[in-house]
Amino acid sequence: MDIKYLKNLLEQVQSGSVDIDAAVHELKNLPFENLGYARIDNHRSIRTGVSEVIYCEGKNIEQIQGIVRRISQRHHNILATRCGKQVFEAIRDADADAVYYDLARIAVIKPQPVEKVGNIVVVSAGTSDIPVAEEAAVTAEVLGNQVKRIYDVGVAGIHRLLDVRDELFEANVAVVVAGMEGALASVVGGLVSCPVIGVPTSIGYGASFGGLAALLSMLNSCASGVSVVNIDNGFGAGYQASLINKLCK
Amino acid sequence: MDIKYLKNLLEQVQSGSVDIDAAVHELKNLPFENLGYARIDNHRSIRTGVSEVIYCEGKNIEQIQGIVRRISQRHHNILATRCGKQVFEAIRDADADAVYYDLARIAVIKPQPVEKVGNIVVVSAGTSDIPVAEEAAVTAEVLGNQVKRIYDVGVAGIHRLLDVRDELFEANVAVVVAGMEGALASVVGGLVSCPVIGVPTSIGYGASFGGLAALLSMLNSCASGVSVVNIDNGFGAGYQASLINKLCK
Amino acid sequence: MDIKYLKNLLEQVQSGSVDIDAAVHELKNLPFENLGYARIDNHRSIRTGVSEVIYCEGKNIEQIQGIVRRISQRHHNILATRCGKQVFEAIRDADADAVYYDLARIAVIKPQPVEKVGNIVVVSAGTSDIPVAEEAAVTAEVLGNQVKRIYDVGVAGIHRLLDVRDELFEANVAVVVAGMEGALASVVGGLVSCPVIGVPTSIGYGASFGGLAALLSMLNSCASGVSVVNIDNGFGAGYQASLINKLCK
Amino acid sequence: MDIKYLKNLLEQVQSGSVDIDAAVHELKNLPFENLGYARIDNHRSIRTGVSEVIYCEGKNIEQIQGIVRRISQRHHNILATRCGKQVFEAIRDADADAVYYDLARIAVIKPQPVEKVGNIVVVSAGTSDIPVAEEAAVTAEVLGNQVKRIYDVGVAGIHRLLDVRDELFEANVAVVVAGMEGALASVVGGLVSCPVIGVPTSIGYGASFGGLAALLSMLNSCASGVSVVNIDNGFGAGYQASLINKLCK
Amino acid sequence: MDIKYLKNLLEQVQSGSVDIDAAVHELKNLPFENLGYARIDNHRSIRTGVSEVIYCEGKNIEQIQGIVRRISQRHHNILATRCGKQVFEAIRDADADAVYYDLARIAVIKPQPVEKVGNIVVVSAGTSDIPVAEEAAVTAEVLGNQVKRIYDVGVAGIHRLLDVRDELFEANVAVVVAGMEGALASVVGGLVSCPVIGVPTSIGYGASFGGLAALLSMLNSCASGVSVVNIDNGFGAGYQASLINKLCK
Amino acid sequence: MDIKYLKNLLEQVQSGSVDIDAAVHELKNLPFENLGYARIDNHRSIRTGVSEVIYCEGKNIEQIQGIVRRISQRHHNILATRCGKQVFEAIRDADADAVYYDLARIAVIKPQPVEKVGNIVVVSAGTSDIPVAEEAAVTAEVLGNQVKRIYDVGVAGIHRLLDVRDELFEANVAVVVAGMEGALASVVGGLVSCPVIGVPTSIGYGASFGGLAALLSMLNSCASGVSVVNIDNGFGAGYQASLINKLCK
Amino acid sequence: MDIKYLKNLLEQVQSGSVDIDAAVHELKNLPFENLGYARIDNHRSIRTGVSEVIYCEGKNIEQIQGIVRRISQRHHNILATRCGKQVFEAIRDADADAVYYDLARIAVIKPQPVEKVGNIVVVSAGTSDIPVAEEAAVTAEVLGNQVKRIYDVGVAGIHRLLDVRDELFEANVAVVVAGMEGALASVVGGLVSCPVIGVPTSIGYGASFGGLAALLSMLNSCASGVSVVNIDNGFGAGYQASLINKLCK
Amino acid sequence: MDIKYLKNLLEQVQSGSVDIDAAVHELKNLPFENLGYARIDNHRSIRTGVSEVIYCEGKNIEQIQGIVRRISQRHHNILATRCGKQVFEAIRDADADAVYYDLARIAVIKPQPVEKVGNIVVVSAGTSDIPVAEEAAVTAEVLGNQVKRIYDVGVAGIHRLLDVRDELFEANVAVVVAGMEGALASVVGGLVSCPVIGVPTSIGYGASFGGLAALLSMLNSCASGVSVVNIDNGFGAGYQASLINKLCK
Repeated sequence: MDIKYLKNLLEQVQSGSVDIDAAVHELKNLPFENLGYARIDNHRSIRTGVSEVIYCEGKNIEQIQGIVRRISQRHHNILATRCGKQVFEAIRDADADAVYYDLARIAVIKPQPVEKVGNIVVVSAGTSDIPVAEEAAVTAEVLGNQVKRIYDVGVAGIHRLLDVRDELFEANVAVVVAGMEGALASVVGGLVSCPVIGVPTSIGYGASFGGLAALLSMLNSCASGVSVVNIDNGFGAGYQASLINKLCK
Repeated sequence: MDIKYLKNLLEQVQSGSVDIDAAVHELKNLPFENLGYARIDNHRSIRTGVSEVIYCEGKNIEQIQGIVRRISQRHHNILATRCGKQVFEAIRDADADAVYYDLARIAVIKPQPVEKVGNIVVVSAGTSDIPVAEEAAVTAEVLGNQVKRIYDVGVAGIHRLLDVRDELFEANVAVVVAGMEGALASVVGGLVSCPVIGVPTSIGYGASFGGLAALLSMLNSCASGVSVVNIDNGFGAGYQASLINKLCK
Repeated sequence: MDIKYLKNLLEQVQSGSVDIDAAVHELKNLPFENLGYARIDNHRSIRTGVSEVIYCEGKNIEQIQGIVRRISQRHHNILATRCGKQVFEAIRDADADAVYYDLARIAVIKPQPVEKVGNIVVVSAGTSDIPVAEEAAVTAEVLGNQVKRIYDVGVAGIHRLLDVRDELFEANVAVVVAGMEGALASVVGGLVSCPVIGVPTSIGYGASFGGLAALLSMLNSCASGVSVVNIDNGFGAGYQASLINKLCK
Repeated sequence: MDIKYLKNLLEQVQSGSVDIDAAVHELKNLPFENLGYARIDNHRSIRTGVSEVIYCEGKNIEQIQGIVRRISQRHHNILATRCGKQVFEAIRDADADAVYYDLARIAVIKPQPVEKVGNIVVVSAGTSDIPVAEEAAVTAEVLGNQVKRIYDVGVAGIHRLLDVRDELFEANVAVVVAGMEGALASVVGGLVSCPVIGVPTSIGYGASFGGLAALLSMLNSCASGVSVVNIDNGFGAGYQASLINKLCK
Repeated sequence: MDIKYLKNLLEQVQSGSVDIDAAVHELKNLPFENLGYARIDNHRSIRTGVSEVIYCEGKNIEQIQGIVRRISQRHHNILATRCGKQVFEAIRDADADAVYYDLARIAVIKPQPVEKVGNIVVVSAGTSDIPVAEEAAVTAEVLGNQVKRIYDVGVAGIHRLLDVRDELFEANVAVVVAGMEGALASVVGGLVSCPVIGVPTSIGYGASFGGLAALLSMLNSCASGVSVVNIDNGFGAGYQASLINKLCK
Repeated sequence: MDIKYLKNLLEQVQSGSVDIDAAVHELKNLPFENLGYARIDNHRSIRTGVSEVIYCEGKNIEQIQGIVRRISQRHHNILATRCGKQVFEAIRDADADAVYYDLARIAVIKPQPVEKVGNIVVVSAGTSDIPVAEEAAVTAEVLGNQVKRIYDVGVAGIHRLLDVRDELFEANVAVVVAGMEGALASVVGGLVSCPVIGVPTSIGYGASFGGLAALLSMLNSCASGVSVVNIDNGFGAGYQASLINKLCK
Repeated sequence: MDIKYLKNLLEQVQSGSVDIDAAVHELKNLPFENLGYARIDNHRSIRTGVSEVIYCEGKNIEQIQGIVRRISQRHHNILATRCGKQVFEAIRDADADAVYYDLARIAVIKPQPVEKVGNIVVVSAGTSDIPVAEEAAVTAEVLGNQVKRIYDVGVAGIHRLLDVRDELFEANVAVVVAGMEGALASVVGGLVSCPVIGVPTSIGYGASFGGLAALLSMLNSCASGVSVVNIDNGFGAGYQASLINKLCK
Repeated sequence: MDIKYLKNLLEQVQSGSVDIDAAVHELKNLPFENLGYARIDNHRSIRTGVSEVIYCEGKNIEQIQGIVRRISQRHHNILATRCGKQVFEAIRDADADAVYYDLARIAVIKPQPVEKVGNIVVVSAGTSDIPVAEEAAVTAEVLGNQVKRIYDVGVAGIHRLLDVRDELFEANVAVVVAGMEGALASVVGGLVSCPVIGVPTSIGYGASFGGLAALLSMLNSCASGVSVVNIDNGFGAGYQASLINKLCK
């Protein structure tokens, strides 16, 4: 139920093709719909342009299916993140059209083609960081953005990064995904003039403390245009990159 | 030495009004200039559109004055951050035109009027967070952005925030500055459709652990479009907000 | 063995219907009873009005059954918390009447109807926080309190919370259960005039550090009437809410 | 501007003794009043029964005086906490009647006698914890509660605590203030049947880590009715104790 | 190879019942014996009165069996700690006489009766702390100490502890084992005049952070005669208690 | 008021040289005496053999003087720890005989010669650790123990430690004081057969984190007879060493 | 593709035995080769003398096999670290000659005899530290260094270490591997005149916090020539030891 | 008293120019000399080639002067680190020839020219890191090494670093000094083939947590030849760099 949907409904009321009672019924759940265990924020797509996203961790199968069934009545291209294969099977029971991105662990419910605009680059330091990078990239693509992937360009071989300088320079926004010491965010931040969103990953061991090292590293970046999201939060980075990329028209 | 400066120089070479030797001399320091204790990154303004910023903490007076004298030969509106009053006196000895923003602890060297474009809002949770908020706001203004300040709208009285909803809705990007539990970033993030940059502050005591509580809070925001900079890093937020705001033309 | 039980016994002694030796035998274990691996605090229900609660984690099946058998000789409505399904099976072997609340992971031994008084609201930020919220709600109900559940009203869609304002205003005490950044405790604390007990949950990932982010957030709440219990400690919150709610007569 | 004030105003409008324009003027600032650097939440006393409290740390003298002048136009018994002697001098310039509690570091602006009801005990483990205990006690007294102080009854000499058992048993709510290992909260929590609010203090050294040891200790209390506020947050404990104590009528 | 063994050998040399070459062969491995993956410290029992203890965690079956075979050639009552059931089976293959204490997870290799002297009390706060308490108690018993166990006397019901005051007063040294907030160490430390060794356990959840809360609590004990060993280190506490207890003759 | 004092009083009552009223007056304050801001634990010296110790930090001059005056009425050799020079001046105003140990920052009130028994060694790793070592040594001496000081034998030059092996072997108990990495506790623990009390100090910088490194190091000691007190807690180590040393008669 | 390979290629071009096109084809991938999920840094062996090392954790089987196939086209003695048995099976499918070191969890792809030079000692504190020590030792051997292993010489029996003093004195560089309190690094650092590389391990429990205790201990070493690598990073230590050892010619 | 000194003494004994008693007197203090508060490790220069270094922090003036007087009787070029200006004045009172390096806060006692060999580069990320870099550089120079300083080449302007590539390539060992996110260590580590010693500095604020961010970053370096010393430990890095550099002959 986004703004287009809302306008359309009101025009039908105006023209008389929908009567008042039916419209009231429809609008009753506009702000949110209460399932008991979840209140679906239908207003979100009006407010932010994106329908509610389902974060699957910590929810049981019944709850996820219930939420999927309700949201899919009014929305398209609904993202379900942190979605394991087993959970996806349950989602497909509720929506047969749902598609799955396994590296990214994302399901898209009621998928619909979207025009992809602008230019987001998603950069990863290492091969092991790719699942988080894919979460960012798929999120951004589903939300209607052009995404360029540049993987395994960590600072231990800086020439690999310098080699893709031109692609970095053309981006509206760069998502930089790195574990271990997370130095890549600073180096990219020093090279480009676009905003950089750092995503520390939990890749590493010992004193990486589950991604803390990369997180602190990115927060203390000596390069100026870098902000940071939670450890392994590819979704959040892809989402914000989309908000930024779409400002450019 | 930004791109305009560079083009101008090359045109003068083309037209013959500057001879090759003089141009070479000028271009020799293009990438950076080595003062021994500092290498001034002259190329930065070409690369990123903003000249090098002087972070005053940990540098002594002689070093700061030396850097100011060199950068000011080629740039305008140079920011000096974390600049105490005493340090500003020293800067003014090196550049008599420098101006000082005392709440923000920022000096601007060789100030020059800039056109201010777009719409950044800077929101603070409490009165005590204002110095950090001002660092963000002044940074963004000096870099050529329109800034709307909305201060003391912390979540303990949520109606104060709801009251300024319209101003929030109009922003291209929101900087949210909050100490203690930092909840304001999530609440603003849930209201708006623009990107939100959270700035945790060190305001608080006890289990705030110098801003750690607000930092973790913002990193774990349940609202989707929020990224975060270092504790008290108003400059970094203002800088990135400027990069984002300028994408909208 | 609560105060009613004790009075009754002494009245029987007074009237002669119980002789001294029998009463002594009964009272011998009044302060506590030593099973070797556990000392059952029979005096607790006299002191605090609530019989000893069995925290199941870290105890083996034999120990739990032994404790259940002894406590159930003198008490009703005994709570066993952190009780998995397998442990409940063992409890039911010791008390066939025991009932199980699976979302809350609570067993109630020798269940007995209680009058439910007052008004406690239990609020959860997200669907994933429900198990902890249920631990609080079931605890409070078993202890004889009216409980109103309000689930999935996290701050990312603040209108969902504002929508239930009236229910919040009517509470004697509010339990607020939230993971991730735990901002809901502050927002509720700013809205209501009753005491708020915050329960941070371990829901989240990365820089949530097992609930630390929500815990610090709630401890630093900018709203004034908020106190906090341990991460995931729904029982503790429900218990204290009961103590507070029962002060209102 | 509490509910009494509001009713009074409307009755005057009803009776004609105040005209509409004057009432509108008065009500215009009802939700809050914007001083630029602060938005005074006038609605708070309607919502919560207590006017906004001024937390002095991080505010400069001009800001504090401005806030004092505005709040004192509509409220009495306004608390200013974390108020050093120098700050109090400035407050007295703005309100000559203000009184100062130096151990508690609290100023009360426009003081007015209040009836003190109920029964709160404030217990401290050591002599060094008294300043925080006093912050709790004075807060509760100014808010209209009877307060009984029991100081220096730490667990290293448990008979000192057992000696005051009767006073503990009579309380509606107990505030327990302790630094170092903070064990007193658990011991008191095990003795009483009323809610206990633990206040860890920063008293200690080394592995107390600024109060962290006492904080974690209280959060992990093995006694059931204990909740916790921030390190050194005597105000917060006194405030919540007041909310709880006033439920008993 | 303790001092008795050594004297005996030298007496045999003196008397001629053992020749020089045989004695040299025997003494060659006196300081230690090198197995490649382990250097068995045979000198330890001379130096400290206790033969080397086998910490099983992190060693594989072959290594443990090899060490058992060598140590058991020269020593009795060898402790193997952190020894799971499966590991014990392997130990029994190397020494058929080995006995197993399953709660304590300790195996004793080449067991031999020892005289038990003095008086050590091992106190546990809760039933869940018993495995660690047993590790301390069994260690002390195998090393030749009288041990009195007092379990489940946590501070939530302080009368249970006061009830065993006399047993505490008679001890030469007290080992106090507690998880959660670990307050029992301070309370016992305030009651007795003997040295107290605190053993924090990892029992707890959330902000117990794997025993950190209890550890910090005990380190900050306000009672004076308390020292602390590592989290869950029942062995270390039992060992030191033995050293202390044996000073009393 | 220790056991000798108590016996003496009762004998005087028995013999009639003190009448009942005077004895009652005297015994009234036996458990403790309430000064309002402090409850002096007079019973402690009966219970533990040592009168209450005054920890000066966080107490103001008036409180300290008040406590000194009361305790000194009934006790001798009262320790005041963490006592700066200025505080000592105030103590001397209350007791002209008080003596000061400036390296140890300890005052002894109403000093009296004591017989020194047994053998405690206090070992320090570096010269900078001496103040903490002295706090331990002076505490133990005032409590009536022979103390041998061995300073600056850190593991960076292990032969310095091996050189004093014999003195270590003769001790009943060893206090090992070390900052930085605190390795000395393990090395001493591996050499001796007596109990070792480790005192981590805050000497160090950077990743010493105020003594945390030394604390963790000592808690994880691979040598078996080591227990640990709080960072910089020389007093606690000296006190426990005294308890242990006095067990040997 | 190391320097030898490069020279050889150019000599063939010079002599005409390889034509320009073939050489260009070969050199095209000199800096790196892009597999999509990985960019193989072929230039590394020219730059650093060692070909890219495959860190197996976080990569899937297909990715590892792909990388193995490409790297093995141009390099020998390629290290694959953190390589479990199952992963090794997959590697052997891609290179039948690959050999496996199971204690070290290292595979060597396209193994080739190398001359071993110099003298590195790898010292371990305990038997449980051997896997990490072996990772260091095998790494150094594959890179062409003589390695002397000295295992289980922890400081709890210091004579075991002193016994191998001569072997330590002869080393060019010492790698010291220790968990728990990690004191061995300081003790070795105080004995030798060669550089010491400390490797803290995660061996331990409780307050070892996954190796943090040993890490902090080594970083704070009071001995001067010690530097440190990440927890359990045997590879990193072996690698740097090789760089240092090879400086000696 | 280094090896040269020792040989010389023994030759004089051999030739009869020094008699036995005098030699004994001299050699008596060979292992160390006990000043009470310090044991000077005279043997260190024999063992490691460098005389004992005086770490000034935490020592008082008298102690420092005493140590200076003794060490300077037998050694030259003695380093005193963490030496403030006031402390240096005291040192000059004990040795009039002492020289002071104020940026590095190092005094050199009984300075003597040394031949400088090899090639160490000391690289700093920012101007604020220079004091730590100088501590490393001066230490290495006093110990007889050639040092090349390369300052302010942080990764925010990577071309500044690439510009000095050749100087980096020529080094035997590189010391990399960086605060904030410490990314420079990884980038340099990826470029060079010599060992890299990372020195994290405490430069930064907020989530730098006193250098923790840079420390963790360097420990998790994705480049292979990097080891790390304590935060701000320029001395330790310079010392180890010297050990490594001198291996190259």
